[in-house]
Amino acid sequence: MLGLDPDPIRLWPAAASATPVGGAPAERAAAAVAAHCRAVIDAAGVACVAVKPQLACFERLGAAGWAALAQVVAHAHAAGLLVLADGKRGDIDVSAAAYGQALVGATPTPFGEVEGLGVDAFTAAPYMGADTLEVLISAARAAGAGVFVLVRTSNPGAVDVEDLELASGGPLWGSVAAMVSRLGGAARAGVSDVGAVVGATAPEHVARMRELMPRAPFLLPGIGAQGGRVEDLAPAFAPGRAGALVSASRSIVYAHESAGGAPAEAARGEAERLRSAAWALV
Amino acid sequence: MLGLDPDPIRLWPAAASATPVGGAPAERAAAAVAAHCRAVIDAAGVACVAVKPQLACFERLGAAGWAALAQVVAHAHAAGLLVLADGKRGDIDVSAAAYGQALVGATPTPFGEVEGLGVDAFTAAPYMGADTLEVLISAARAAGAGVFVLVRTSNPGAVDVEDLELASGGPLWGSVAAMVSRLGGAARAGVSDVGAVVGATAPEHVARMRELMPRAPFLLPGIGAQGGRVEDLAPAFAPGRAGALVSASRSIVYAHESAGGAPAEAARGEAERLRSAAWALV
Repeated sequence: MLGLDPDPIRLWPAAASATPVGGAPAERAAAAVAAHCRAVIDAAGVACVAVKPQLACFERLGAAGWAALAQVVAHAHAAGLLVLADGKRGDIDVSAAAYGQALVGATPTPFGEVEGLGVDAFTAAPYMGADTLEVLISAARAAGAGVFVLVRTSNPGAVDVEDLELASGGPLWGSVAAMVSRLGGAARAGVSDVGAVVGATAPEHVARMRELMPRAPFLLPGIGAQGGRVEDLAPAFAPGRAGALVSASRSIVYAHESAGGAPAEAARGEAERLRSAAWALV
Repeated sequence: MLGLDPDPIRLWPAAASATPVGGAPAERAAAAVAAHCRAVIDAAGVACVAVKPQLACFERLGAAGWAALAQVVAHAHAAGLLVLADGKRGDIDVSAAAYGQALVGATPTPFGEVEGLGVDAFTAAPYMGADTLEVLISAARAAGAGVFVLVRTSNPGAVDVEDLELASGGPLWGSVAAMVSRLGGAARAGVSDVGAVVGATAPEHVARMRELMPRAPFLLPGIGAQGGRVEDLAPAFAPGRAGALVSASRSIVYAHESAGGAPAEAARGEAERLRSAAWALV
């Protein structure tokens, strides 16, 4: 999976230079970000099943950034790719329902329905409990979409909360994993519609997570720039090719900085290398 | 604190009817939402110190919704109110930094800096650990803003994760509370710049939270529509009036549905009643 974390000061040169000359900084930066993401999708999308836009990178450009995000979603869909919105949302009842409308649903208004982003999946945060996740999952299920719940992430601070030992035994993430497994619906292609975000930088946990969540698709960020290696992730693919999504962002988009050559060719090469490494595990 | 959770099909009649006739549903709904929020601020803001827009309610209207959010922030600031963006964000390093830029900072681009929302505080989710919070807190601190971290929320599902008993003793929320206390900076007006979201529906925990976080400002949602009562929250105000923000949304905005009268007068009356009840605790 191709992560899209566009940084306006680190875009592919062709995208930055294709931007219209006039307009406010937010509009120009958002146009450049959208052009960059389209170029990245055109270059590396062929070796991926999905793209994962990081919502924060679009929100920081305000309304223009949100419009760019909608364009990127449309471009990815036109290229035959699934879109997973990475926003790690989570909130109570009516607020969770509003996130569902924003991401996979539509909002009734007196002026007609307003369509949401129309993504195929999104990430969610579990801290507030099952009732908050159930609202998001219901919204996703109604749209034929999926939800990936944070279970054990790839950052060092995962030890502060996720790894805390419970009185009932095992780390907190084990309990969250059991909740994720419980919330998952009927399996298709070996996997359910509620997945887990599992950091690729802690491969020692992946086998245990697969035991706790036999049918959950795993989203595995942290490959490349964050230090994770595809080769360590075999248990994630136990249910088959649909069992895991290996996500890389910077290691694909900036591959030319280490590999040399044009950005597009280097990105495609790195995406194809990761795909081969992942499929070799199945 | 005045919560702003605008629902396009439940706006104050004057706001809905003041909307321009032409345009796409998203633009018209966003204009109506912005007009509604401005009217609510004009009516009830005088009895509040801050407004709390729920980001999901704006995101569901896409780019137009984000533009409406920016207008609401500006209107609240012009009315002399602080703005707390309720988005419960949380992510790793570069993504957390992007949320900081979106909410309280600015984003460098080749076309000039793009200002973020410029809010005075925002809510954050703790599941991914201290390093993810530290990035958000640094961004907030640089802007003179504050962060409110979810500790123990007001929904029934709080038992699923937040209340889990740790092997080291006490519930998970106690450990998160200790982390929040540790992350807080020097106190001003008796409180630090890192606060805690503490559901008003579990008043039995508030005294213990105040012990664990002696200087953290508490954000107390769940008053009114969710069943919490201001009168139960005295320990939250131990550091003084700045010790806690009592938040109500629907019980203020829809006060006219039970109290009768015009929406604006009923909203102001309910906000004043809550303010009096809160100040009586100090």
